[in-house]
Amino acid sequence: MTLRFTLSATDGQARLGRLETAHGPIDTPAFMPVGTAATVKAMLPQSVAATGAQIVLGNTYHLMLRPGAERIAALGGLHRFMNWPGPILTDSGGFQVMSLAGLRTMSEQGVVFRSHIDGSQHELTPERSMDIQRMLDADITMAFDECTPFPATHEEAERSMRMSMRWAARSKAAFQPRDGYGLFGIVQGGVYPDLRRGSAEILTGIGFDGYAVGGLAVGEGQDTMFAVLDETVPHLPAANPRYLMGVGRPMDIVGAVLRGIDMFDCVMPTRSGRTAQAFTRSGTLNLRNARHRDDPAPLDSGCGCPACRDFSRAYLHHLIRSEEILGPMLLTWHNIQYYQDLMLGLRTAIAAGRAEDFARDVQAQESRGGPESP
Amino acid sequence: MTLRFTLSATDGQARLGRLETAHGPIDTPAFMPVGTAATVKAMLPQSVAATGAQIVLGNTYHLMLRPGAERIAALGGLHRFMNWPGPILTDSGGFQVMSLAGLRTMSEQGVVFRSHIDGSQHELTPERSMDIQRMLDADITMAFDECTPFPATHEEAERSMRMSMRWAARSKAAFQPRDGYGLFGIVQGGVYPDLRRGSAEILTGIGFDGYAVGGLAVGEGQDTMFAVLDETVPHLPAANPRYLMGVGRPMDIVGAVLRGIDMFDCVMPTRSGRTAQAFTRSGTLNLRNARHRDDPAPLDSGCGCPACRDFSRAYLHHLIRSEEILGPMLLTWHNIQYYQDLMLGLRTAIAAGRAEDFARDVQAQESRGGPESP
Repeated sequence: MTLRFTLSATDGQARLGRLETAHGPIDTPAFMPVGTAATVKAMLPQSVAATGAQIVLGNTYHLMLRPGAERIAALGGLHRFMNWPGPILTDSGGFQVMSLAGLRTMSEQGVVFRSHIDGSQHELTPERSMDIQRMLDADITMAFDECTPFPATHEEAERSMRMSMRWAARSKAAFQPRDGYGLFGIVQGGVYPDLRRGSAEILTGIGFDGYAVGGLAVGEGQDTMFAVLDETVPHLPAANPRYLMGVGRPMDIVGAVLRGIDMFDCVMPTRSGRTAQAFTRSGTLNLRNARHRDDPAPLDSGCGCPACRDFSRAYLHHLIRSEEILGPMLLTWHNIQYYQDLMLGLRTAIAAGRAEDFARDVQAQESRGGPESP
Repeated sequence: MTLRFTLSATDGQARLGRLETAHGPIDTPAFMPVGTAATVKAMLPQSVAATGAQIVLGNTYHLMLRPGAERIAALGGLHRFMNWPGPILTDSGGFQVMSLAGLRTMSEQGVVFRSHIDGSQHELTPERSMDIQRMLDADITMAFDECTPFPATHEEAERSMRMSMRWAARSKAAFQPRDGYGLFGIVQGGVYPDLRRGSAEILTGIGFDGYAVGGLAVGEGQDTMFAVLDETVPHLPAANPRYLMGVGRPMDIVGAVLRGIDMFDCVMPTRSGRTAQAFTRSGTLNLRNARHRDDPAPLDSGCGCPACRDFSRAYLHHLIRSEEILGPMLLTWHNIQYYQDLMLGLRTAIAAGRAEDFARDVQAQESRGGPESP
């Protein structure tokens, strides 16, 4: 093991744990804010840390194109480049290059693609992805895989999964183990229990520091996602962290934690913050909505972030309507704070054996407010 | 007097002073960051305060249209609305409505205009401007005036100045004196010494808490601006603060301080920060420039702001190229820090009787770097 993971409590399938990396510990269940281009959009790194976030995610695809992995390495690695001294997980680049329809060519070897920035040609293979993530100095490296499209037939999903498993073995062979650094494999197989089980068994056979569940939150719906987790998680080693990629809304996360998932990432809190959406203890609010125009109340009276502590809903509404940068700055901060408070609540509830109760409380919050039309 | 102003040192014409307002003191010479729409763009108010700024400027024209002065008053005033507990100066709205060519009708009474936001019709008069600034709870209210266009003939400049002086008398009559709050008159008269002197004498006769010099930095050039100051400032009362509106670049400010000006405002540091320009102790830099791409050095090694303390020029360049919000956030912070450091340097130099030496040092900095092409 090149990463240490310890479990201190369980509550049903939910687990309370700690993952120790070269750049510090991560208390799980954990939510990782997304820092695509070496910045969590609209946030200073110390503000991200102030929310309680212990780890951020960087995107291999974006960083290899701009500013370039070699450049980041020459500047001291991604932690120093973006002034985030804590742990960093990087994705493999696979998810983004697969979505470059028309700009990529796939083969057993890997993917050749053109940059969306300047049209220059690049190649990503399991070996190149490991190389890039090493240059970025990622604490957690993700195996290079194909995110199976949804919907996919059993045949398509199996072909895709088997290639991802061969790429997983190549990723493992190319990864350079170092103390405090780890490599996660990614379970694929679409919505098919036999394929998910097969993928989990192949990955466990190869042996990774952690296991991710990929290819979900791509349109299959929450019920299907939870069903896939129910079929998949039992086949993952209990001693390793489990990461559900790209998920999700608060109740997606809560439900996945109840099914034994330890780590999450999603653009939801940051992207929503840039489009006037706020997650609050009284539901999801759209701050552009005219009904906030004269409201002196804080965004979320249960939150301690600067947006809630220092300003009114009326002011946040004004910033959004005036297209002021401070609007996205404050709403992003709040949303990340909301997600980190959610994870802290989950960890506290698991320790107390009250995870199910906590889930019911969050569900009640969400249904109280419901999404607000613009 | 409804504002207390004390001078503690002079060095030639340069003055070291302190202006006490209802929301706290302002050490002069002072630079006021511009917070047009109830936010210094891309900055949290506590970050603005962290640079050493003691007062910010708000714009009557923008705030009366959105969110509306009555709404801000109902929400507890501008300080509370934007969470800036320190002093606030508001302009009169005159400058902005005058620039609405084709959308406004002027008369002796005032200006009728259409909103650039929704086309709704509004009127600004000296009385309405005073009313709005009172509702905003501005510590320093500016008299309603016409900013004389440049160039203007002597006849045009005189007609404009005389109307502004009648409006100044109406502003004074409409202003409600309160302890810690003050009203500033604005000297007009274009580039004509006799008109500037006449304007200063009329305003002094009316009696204001402070005196602004308006109608400069509108294209006349630094030499002409300084010449107008040389002709105008001696006719202003020594016991009151003097404010040069809308100025300027660092050497404009330094030169004006040497001519007896105490207060400044300008969008230069904030707007430049949003267009990749940084003021530094080694000249003005354009961070978009490819020569910064691999530079591990801080933006300005003499600066203690987060942009300089925590990041490299290479990273700032990357943020700009990637159009990340954090780029404008960091460069705005740095530029405001630079301006506040400049004012602190001026105050320290005046106290030590070294204002001229300080001016030479800043001049040398500027010419060392010079503006950088994109």
